[in-house]
Amino acid sequence: MTGEFEKIDRFLQAFRAAGGRTEGGAVLLGPGDDCALVRSGRPLAVTTDAVVDGVHFRLDRATPRQVGHKALAVNLSDLAGMGARPAAFTCALTVPRGFDDAHLDGIAAGMGSLAARFGCVLAGGNFSGGRELAITITALGEVEGTALRRDAARPGDPVVLVGALGEAAAELAWLEAGRALPPGRSAQHEPEPLVEAGLRAAMTARCGIDVSDGLVQDLGHVAKASGVRVVVELDRVPRSDRFRALASGFSEAQAACWLRAGGEDYALVVTGAAEGVVIGRVEAGAGVVVEGQPAGLALEGFDHFR
Amino acid sequence: MTGEFEKIDRFLQAFRAAGGRTEGGAVLLGPGDDCALVRSGRPLAVTTDAVVDGVHFRLDRATPRQVGHKALAVNLSDLAGMGARPAAFTCALTVPRGFDDAHLDGIAAGMGSLAARFGCVLAGGNFSGGRELAITITALGEVEGTALRRDAARPGDPVVLVGALGEAAAELAWLEAGRALPPGRSAQHEPEPLVEAGLRAAMTARCGIDVSDGLVQDLGHVAKASGVRVVVELDRVPRSDRFRALASGFSEAQAACWLRAGGEDYALVVTGAAEGVVIGRVEAGAGVVVEGQPAGLALEGFDHFR
Repeated sequence: MTGEFEKIDRFLQAFRAAGGRTEGGAVLLGPGDDCALVRSGRPLAVTTDAVVDGVHFRLDRATPRQVGHKALAVNLSDLAGMGARPAAFTCALTVPRGFDDAHLDGIAAGMGSLAARFGCVLAGGNFSGGRELAITITALGEVEGTALRRDAARPGDPVVLVGALGEAAAELAWLEAGRALPPGRSAQHEPEPLVEAGLRAAMTARCGIDVSDGLVQDLGHVAKASGVRVVVELDRVPRSDRFRALASGFSEAQAACWLRAGGEDYALVVTGAAEGVVIGRVEAGAGVVVEGQPAGLALEGFDHFR
Repeated sequence: MTGEFEKIDRFLQAFRAAGGRTEGGAVLLGPGDDCALVRSGRPLAVTTDAVVDGVHFRLDRATPRQVGHKALAVNLSDLAGMGARPAAFTCALTVPRGFDDAHLDGIAAGMGSLAARFGCVLAGGNFSGGRELAITITALGEVEGTALRRDAARPGDPVVLVGALGEAAAELAWLEAGRALPPGRSAQHEPEPLVEAGLRAAMTARCGIDVSDGLVQDLGHVAKASGVRVVVELDRVPRSDRFRALASGFSEAQAACWLRAGGEDYALVVTGAAEGVVIGRVEAGAGVVVEGQPAGLALEGFDHFR
């Protein structure tokens, strides 16, 4: 088994081989010192998110490349939800003793490939021992105009969806049932952060959020922070071809559940003027109202401790 | 058991009750949105470091307050090693199901108390489920002058130590033997980040590192990055009163080991003009040479995977 510093070198090598950069852009000094050095003339959006084996992924279902991709993607999605341009990130890995170094190569490759696409520079990181594989990323993004905040929804705003809902939850049901996923990009294993859409939305709107814990739960954050009521018209929520394929054979109630409460979609919801599909409206009041939902639905947004 | 959002609220409340801030200074927008917003006119030093139950601490030996303190302290020490002033941090917690919420209060209190002392604002974070308690912090510090880099040591520089060495390793030996630690601040459980010393050193020197993995191993990073040889005169390394108390009853060879290779001290070593104790010199060449060390020592710096 390799030691800590060999692991770091090897990880960085695989990350760079996949196109990822460890210096340049806002990063004045990359990995290898006590700290990285980052410089930006703009306000920085800062987010941190962890993925843990057995919670956010399972190594017996997803490839190491997919795990590395997802660990970074969930953070870039938070930047997208703020309307920020990815600039730099740090990556802290907790790795069990005896963990296969080739898996680490795959994780680095998936992360490097995604980082390269969005020009997000790996500024530093940390390897620690532990009992389970966990990847905690902190991402920094530059805010070029107005940040998309949760507390900026106003009565009269349309609620605009960018991206697809329900696929990740439907895929999870397939995986739990031991079924192989249909071909095509997996929403569960390879979520696509909607960075460009977030940047565009930030030019015309002031309120937005990424949908990571389920549409209704995440809109609840907007309603609470903005002091408004958010009305979702479930019939207007588009169903992607992939979602239809995944949902066929399941009940309409189940499909509606996935759309309104499925987690890990990493779609964006913006209130105000934005490109996308209008799925509801902001009103005076409080809470989230779902119009057009079948009765008797129980599935709520994801909570790690419920 | 509380849910995810109750845990967040409770953690923030305990953090604030201990004096910690979640907004102000460089932090324009604190916890509660997709991202925090941070603004600084200076280059930012960025570091990420994790502490994991059973690796960096043990909840049956340390109090939750001490765990929270240590999780932040190891990151502030990295900022100190760069000569940066703490500004903001994010905190990602992985928490096992059924973990006592009162322990989380203690962790938040220890973290909040330390953060308050150094004006470091909690900008955001994340709670995730998992099998073991792990705390991953990413800290941002403002570089006011020259950053203390590992690659800036030059032949002729003195090697200057700030802080005490060996205490944390000696304490660990006590703990492993089931002995209660002597009274006073525990180096193992309550490491003190030498932030002010780092800031002062950055006004006169250009090279520095925090000693987290053992003096010789960490100086090895300086030697490699700077392309120099670092000579340590072990007889000149000061022994604190606490170290003498901890080492009494152990052999001189063991004591010397702790001084030169004990991890988790979070002292600073600076090369060049700086306040502190001169413990060696930089020469042309490569590697680290320890003068005055007893023969037959085996303990090396800490590696998570050896």
